[in-house]
Amino acid sequence: MPVNLSAPRRAELLPVPGVELGWAEAGIRKANRKDLLVIRIAAGATVAGVFTRNRFAAAPVRLCRERLAAAPIRALVVNTGNANAGTGEPGLAAARATCEAAARLLGCEPNEVLPFSTGVIMEPLPVDRLIAGLPSAVNALAPDHWFEAAEAIMTTDTLPKAVSRQIRIGEQAVTISGIAKGAGMIRPDMATMLGFIAMDCSVPRSVLQSMTEHAAGQSFNRITVDGDTSTNDSFIVIASGAGRLAITGVGDSRAAKLREALTDVARQLAQSIVRDGEGATKFIEVRVGEARSADEAAKVAYAVAHSPLVKTAFFASDPNLGRILAAVGNAGVDNLDPTRVQLLLDDVWVVRDGGRHPGYSEADGQRVMRKSEILVHLKLGRGRESTCVWTTDLSHDYVSINADYRS
Amino acid sequence: MPVNLSAPRRAELLPVPGVELGWAEAGIRKANRKDLLVIRIAAGATVAGVFTRNRFAAAPVRLCRERLAAAPIRALVVNTGNANAGTGEPGLAAARATCEAAARLLGCEPNEVLPFSTGVIMEPLPVDRLIAGLPSAVNALAPDHWFEAAEAIMTTDTLPKAVSRQIRIGEQAVTISGIAKGAGMIRPDMATMLGFIAMDCSVPRSVLQSMTEHAAGQSFNRITVDGDTSTNDSFIVIASGAGRLAITGVGDSRAAKLREALTDVARQLAQSIVRDGEGATKFIEVRVGEARSADEAAKVAYAVAHSPLVKTAFFASDPNLGRILAAVGNAGVDNLDPTRVQLLLDDVWVVRDGGRHPGYSEADGQRVMRKSEILVHLKLGRGRESTCVWTTDLSHDYVSINADYRS
Repeated sequence: MPVNLSAPRRAELLPVPGVELGWAEAGIRKANRKDLLVIRIAAGATVAGVFTRNRFAAAPVRLCRERLAAAPIRALVVNTGNANAGTGEPGLAAARATCEAAARLLGCEPNEVLPFSTGVIMEPLPVDRLIAGLPSAVNALAPDHWFEAAEAIMTTDTLPKAVSRQIRIGEQAVTISGIAKGAGMIRPDMATMLGFIAMDCSVPRSVLQSMTEHAAGQSFNRITVDGDTSTNDSFIVIASGAGRLAITGVGDSRAAKLREALTDVARQLAQSIVRDGEGATKFIEVRVGEARSADEAAKVAYAVAHSPLVKTAFFASDPNLGRILAAVGNAGVDNLDPTRVQLLLDDVWVVRDGGRHPGYSEADGQRVMRKSEILVHLKLGRGRESTCVWTTDLSHDYVSINADYRS
Repeated sequence: MPVNLSAPRRAELLPVPGVELGWAEAGIRKANRKDLLVIRIAAGATVAGVFTRNRFAAAPVRLCRERLAAAPIRALVVNTGNANAGTGEPGLAAARATCEAAARLLGCEPNEVLPFSTGVIMEPLPVDRLIAGLPSAVNALAPDHWFEAAEAIMTTDTLPKAVSRQIRIGEQAVTISGIAKGAGMIRPDMATMLGFIAMDCSVPRSVLQSMTEHAAGQSFNRITVDGDTSTNDSFIVIASGAGRLAITGVGDSRAAKLREALTDVARQLAQSIVRDGEGATKFIEVRVGEARSADEAAKVAYAVAHSPLVKTAFFASDPNLGRILAAVGNAGVDNLDPTRVQLLLDDVWVVRDGGRHPGYSEADGQRVMRKSEILVHLKLGRGRESTCVWTTDLSHDYVSINADYRS
């Protein structure tokens, strides 16, 4: 059951001029489900991306890295049901063949196509079925298919994830639409499982890349469900070149405003991944302040967010909050002085100067723990840096979902 | 259900001359269960210990560190039901008061007594009930109470854990007996939750300390259940001075033999903690070879052993083994070349040169995954160092046990 998340309404998802989306049911892993997505991008668009740091990066991720650096991009091809990771040279060949087939249908060069895969690791990609599904996906291409596109990239997601926003920068209107998927193997380390955002404006490639990295850092790189970083994480931003706004460089004052709007959309998509996290019953923000560095704050936040004992206590709505202190103590912060640590749960002051606050009552802790959205606020008493990460609890359903994933 | 583990037989647990054990039901958290243990140690014994690196180290751990360095040790006092961690200055005062009361009853100095606590974190230690239970524990002191001592330190353990061994070093017989407890919050980072081993021989303090660190490194520091390091981990080794074997220094050739026997006992206790891990249905050894350093091998082994996705696949007996590659890719090994990685599951070669072995069949993977004891053997193709860690799967019962722990 997702936490305070519903499917986007179809009518709220806005077309982005210069971008068309088409899907097919290619039967890659299961019959009768959308599992193939093609995104066609207008000539003149710029595309930026960030990818997983997993050393077993999937074949499509390796091709994406090469191609983004080398050529303009005219299309994305995304399949679910198979990750094409841990598949060696045959996996690379399968990803290349996919791009060649798509390029023939779309009338572009193979190296102008980026491939993406998500699903089971270490099984051969059924490339024949994938290629057989491409004509139907290409026939379906249209600008108003964001909802179907969000559905076509789902795996264990229970809901499609999509966000649209229209902003005004100076005189110019800009439309930003994005989709994402992911529910497990979520601890992105450059990006989420898969996220695609398009904007109808012009942005030079290098500026777009820096905006994309900023947005990922504030969104997909701040979430975790189970601490497992996927082999296939990819986050792609398209500036389609349609629309009248043209950013000229990093110094452009409108760039900052566009970057914030992009980051907002990315953050909302990232949070929707956590809300739909496998087995999630709670949405938890772990905020860490008064750290010496942002890295140190992140270490502590992730130590709390990854602790199975903290996560099961949230699942049980049990204010067994000493487990949070134990996790802080394990975060590997040098010379942490426990007597300077404060912990608040929403508005309840739980730990003062490293020990239980004299005014803390179990009833107050219990009241907050019963909520579906909870803020864990830690202050380390060491400096001025801070960060926050978003995560879920650990429930029986997480175990069920992942024990049965392939069946 | 513990994995291939049964309770030790009372008759197999051998007294260690110079060491007596007594217990009480002090009602610290629950009535009618053994929750207090006193161990009396003969004058002239040496005692060594290693402790948690958790920055929120419990009050008793802090006292142990001070006292071990300063004075001879004549007694240990252990309570369950309350960890006396995250309790600030009142926690330290409670631990000191415990030692003072024990010292009065035993006729020694308070700083010759080491306190140990395990249980819920961040709740005040009910020191009055603890002290009220001490006379009964002291009255029960006897050399043949190792079984009852193992019972008295249990928390979520389903079975007491104790091991005895008799060895011969040259002409001298040495008896080694030990107990341990722990089932969750297990990823020791110097020692287990609680482990106590005694030997009836004489060993200088500095030699005993180095033997203790060696034994911990090969046993308690190689296990993990849930990746959470406790605030209270303590591992203590007593050389009672009784018996005829007297080690004179590190250079003593008999020291190596004693060290190996001690390490064997520690390893068996550590493995019994994993076998009784919360919700465990499988006992898994993760062996990593061909690494550039032991640290690098350990990083990879723990990345696999901590991955919730790997652990749920083991629970399901599902050979979804790509998850193991994804975990290896996340271990943070610089410049890991995936095409040099090999994976064997027991005798089944699953991954050759980074991809699925052509001869691998799902049926073979399935056969191994159904077993209750499984070896995950990774070779990184980078060097000559290796290590192994022992862990469990992640089951519904782990979630149930930790969601309900305090109720």
